Amino acid sequence: MKWIVNGQVVEDDGGLSPADRGSLLGDGLFETFRVERGVPLLLEKHMDRLMEGTRILRFARVPAREELAAGIRRAIAVNEIDGGYLRLTLTRGRGGLAQPLTELTDPAWWVEARPLALDPRVKERGVTAVIASTRLYPDTPLRRVKSLSFLENVLAKQEARDRGAQEALFLTTDGDVMEGASANLFLVKEGILSTPSLDRGPLPGVVRSWVLETAVRLDLAVEERRVKREELDEADELFLTNSTWGPFPCVAVNGSPVGDGLPGTHTRRWMERWEAEVAAQIGRDQ
Amino acid sequence: MKWIVNGQVVEDDGGLSPADRGSLLGDGLFETFRVERGVPLLLEKHMDRLMEGTRILRFARVPAREELAAGIRRAIAVNEIDGGYLRLTLTRGRGGLAQPLTELTDPAWWVEARPLALDPRVKERGVTAVIASTRLYPDTPLRRVKSLSFLENVLAKQEARDRGAQEALFLTTDGDVMEGASANLFLVKEGILSTPSLDRGPLPGVVRSWVLETAVRLDLAVEERRVKREELDEADELFLTNSTWGPFPCVAVNGSPVGDGLPGTHTRRWMERWEAEVAAQIGRDQ
Ligand SMILES: Cc1ncc(COP(=O)(O)O)c(C=O)c1O
Ligand SMILES: Cc1ncc(COP(=O)(O)O)c(C=O)c1O
Repeated sequence: MKWIVNGQVVEDDGGLSPADRGSLLGDGLFETFRVERGVPLLLEKHMDRLMEGTRILRFARVPAREELAAGIRRAIAVNEIDGGYLRLTLTRGRGGLAQPLTELTDPAWWVEARPLALDPRVKERGVTAVIASTRLYPDTPLRRVKSLSFLENVLAKQEARDRGAQEALFLTTDGDVMEGASANLFLVKEGILSTPSLDRGPLPGVVRSWVLETAVRLDLAVEERRVKREELDEADELFLTNSTWGPFPCVAVNGSPVGDGLPGTHTRRWMERWEAEVAAQIGRDQ
Repeated sequence: MKWIVNGQVVEDDGGLSPADRGSLLGDGLFETFRVERGVPLLLEKHMDRLMEGTRILRFARVPAREELAAGIRRAIAVNEIDGGYLRLTLTRGRGGLAQPLTELTDPAWWVEARPLALDPRVKERGVTAVIASTRLYPDTPLRRVKSLSFLENVLAKQEARDRGAQEALFLTTDGDVMEGASANLFLVKEGILSTPSLDRGPLPGVVRSWVLETAVRLDLAVEERRVKREELDEADELFLTNSTWGPFPCVAVNGSPVGDGLPGTHTRRWMERWEAEVAAQIGRDQ
């Protein structure tokens, strides 16, 4: 595989400084994209979130958005990606804990792009989830960005695996629902769509934001609010969203089926809307 | 500077894989050591904590302790460090979020060692602290290890700087005291020494553990317990501990002086005991 590191094409083991704050302090941001027919989906939304992240984390300097977008397109081209996975990582560059953030004016970034076929069973049958044993505090800047300090999520994913599930759901320290370890969560009850509001700490996911905008455009009932733990047991349908999958069904929580344990009609309709969105983006961008 | 990367000496920009989980997911551990006369202080305690960290994070494979210790001594030697700063970083190696932790059997590690003169004013006058605006949840494995997912601490350090202080103190989500962004906290009230117990989330600091053991050995009154926020205002003395400084005075919190605003007698005695400990270690190890 060829990487793009700080704008240059390098072979697999390109080499990143061992003094980079990404590898020393988890001090950076990332975006993961789905690529379809060579098109990075929701590119502008991803770049918006990344740029907002650099403001929240107070980066002293940020590479130009166009430069990063060019790196993304180049990684897709040099690796000849049709359908795949792409990840952009951006750090504050080299430096230690003692340095004021204002002095860190030499950021580093790199792009990974590789082919990835999606397993159709995820959308056909849905995934199962468990409630993570760890809770997350919602009221911190870290919950508003997609940061490299991702170990809590790494451990939650492994907890899901250990308990025979695909996803782990985080509760807030107040006991309400936040999000999955790598996805946002939506629930459907009596036709009304709900998702934890951003003040409850979920990542402002790009697919989450696409769902909310699309719901408003289609005049569908949707609520961003505090979601109680018990509501997961009483929901008619649950679905998860992230950049790799778009919306996908969540059919069980802690071993209890959601509704009748099969992907629901609202969820299926959201998956269809997503396919249409993807087709439209490919048509526009190619 | 010369780095030791996976046991090899490499020049400054040695090169770390951009696919390393340390730089992608904050998925790794680190230890920072003070070096005096070429001796890495409290080496065994640091190695114990690191190894305990690999168990808590369930590393599938870990380099031999002797191999890591040899890398540390080599980094000191090739960089000719007398008094300095040393950091060992250990990650799960390459891989993505989707991989089970059990499959990650090729860990990566690197050592940085550089000269560092300590500013005597820190011990003579002490430092000031502020209460961080973010709280931390105590009941997670992340609080028991020194992990690379360190961004919360990076931001708290900057918050301290912005507010004219040197250290930021974290409260738990329950509102009691946890620790500093890069140090443990002790308070003295009517001659009794107290520090937040490990179930309140502080890092099991190597100097913290040295203080506790030394207090027991000297038959001094010491308590590990829940420390209330208000106790900081009522303390006779506060001191911080970490590997770089040993114990050092904290003379103000959120702009209010601790006691009479000067380093206290108990704190000074702890700094003297630390100097004696360092001298003893140099004598033994050289
Ligand atoms: C913790 C977390 N929440 C939510 C999401 C979904 O966000 P997006 O739709 O932007 O992929 C992700 C994506 O990986 C995530 O890691
Ligand atoms: C968050 C935190 N707490 C406590 C400490 C003190 O630990 P130690 O005495 O092992 O250096 C550190 C050290 O850097 C730290 O980062």
